[in-house]
Amino acid sequence: METTFSIQKIVLLGAGNVATQLGKALVDAGYLITQVYSQTKRSSARLAKKLNAAPITSLKNLDQTATLFIIAIKDDVIAPFAKQLKLTTQFVVHTSGTVQADVLKDCSKNFGVFYPLQTFSKDKIVDFATTPICIEANTKSATETLTYFAKSISRNVQKINSEQRKIIHLAAVFACNFSNHMYTISASILKEHHLSFDILKPLIAETADKIKINPPDKMQTGPAIRKDYKTMETHLKLLKKNKELKKIYKLVSEHINH
Amino acid sequence: METTFSIQKIVLLGAGNVATQLGKALVDAGYLITQVYSQTKRSSARLAKKLNAAPITSLKNLDQTATLFIIAIKDDVIAPFAKQLKLTTQFVVHTSGTVQADVLKDCSKNFGVFYPLQTFSKDKIVDFATTPICIEANTKSATETLTYFAKSISRNVQKINSEQRKIIHLAAVFACNFSNHMYTISASILKEHHLSFDILKPLIAETADKIKINPPDKMQTGPAIRKDYKTMETHLKLLKKNKELKKIYKLVSEHINH
Repeated sequence: METTFSIQKIVLLGAGNVATQLGKALVDAGYLITQVYSQTKRSSARLAKKLNAAPITSLKNLDQTATLFIIAIKDDVIAPFAKQLKLTTQFVVHTSGTVQADVLKDCSKNFGVFYPLQTFSKDKIVDFATTPICIEANTKSATETLTYFAKSISRNVQKINSEQRKIIHLAAVFACNFSNHMYTISASILKEHHLSFDILKPLIAETADKIKINPPDKMQTGPAIRKDYKTMETHLKLLKKNKELKKIYKLVSEHINH
Repeated sequence: METTFSIQKIVLLGAGNVATQLGKALVDAGYLITQVYSQTKRSSARLAKKLNAAPITSLKNLDQTATLFIIAIKDDVIAPFAKQLKLTTQFVVHTSGTVQADVLKDCSKNFGVFYPLQTFSKDKIVDFATTPICIEANTKSATETLTYFAKSISRNVQKINSEQRKIIHLAAVFACNFSNHMYTISASILKEHHLSFDILKPLIAETADKIKINPPDKMQTGPAIRKDYKTMETHLKLLKKNKELKKIYKLVSEHINH
């Protein structure tokens, strides 16, 4: 039977938005982060200082006594990075929504995924207690360990396999990244006409608030769902200088309308 | 000099989402709504009952003693509706984001626009106190009256002319209607794979929360802004059955990325 080991010392591999916010949450929860790794000296130094950890820029200096190694780097470099990481039984996880768990299979006997389903910026504190953590691990005991660890910082921990996680990540791109880009477009339209984006903030808050208790398709409002073609024509005329925005306006309106 | 008159009795012309929520807010603020008009008997009866008003289905029965008439009907029927409305000096406003104020010029000597910049559903109570009200009126004293009235239900009242209002409405379509549709798409992707939309709710809340203090373009996250083409390829493969969603995914990602 495999041993369930407890997580005490953590090494953060990465110093971007996820590493920064997750690092802060872990320190707040009482964990000891011994090292922060980044190829870029300035990045590792910056975050290590915040977390009271040592900065490292080479994997040769890795603290092998740590019990958990968290890889929080860009999705497309996780696989090549994992090839350089040689551990024995220490727990190693990545935080990606799209990368398979088994890219870590040669790193250690214990590996998995710790995917916090949230949007992270360096300077905006995230409430991890309400952030869903999607976990996956290679053995039953590793899953137990990871669950226990995740529950120590979040009330919303879910076992999600790699295929499900990909779907959730795709859905999150629409719900978060694309809706944020819609905010960006609206801000640029207002700016072009010397109007303040502030006027839209209560509307954005209400739009996001509505779907907490109602299905979003039932909450759809606006000219497209009303099939108000006259207003849509007016909008397209107002956008006439901007071909790309017209395309987006038409395509999304048609998709609402269909 | 024109007289600034006070608003006491109100007639609501319309019984849809805006009329419902605005009517409730007005009653809560102590206004007397004497009538609710709708062509559909059931609609006028339903809302009139809630507001302790009389339902009417014909303009012949209009309470001419009311001091304010609020037209809250679909944008594209406001102009033809206004042609049937013959008042003298009573104040008449519409609540539309796109319709010019002067479509009401033959209805009364006092007319304007009272546009609450919010998304309204019949069953979701709206906090009018924080809802921006864009107002416009045909004379200085009418503007004063309307400002005073609007301020009695909202802390955020702004004078906005018809051209600016159209721009704000267009921006609102992106910020609200289109972002809500992005939620709908994400919910449909999850449903197709038997996953719960609940898992995305903290993410959606955080995405909307971030832009309260940060410009949305600075808050953009996800594969498109990272130029993570591998992840975007994976997402397009996952969407392969759905040509329309692939189009939206590509177009919005390119627009983020450019």
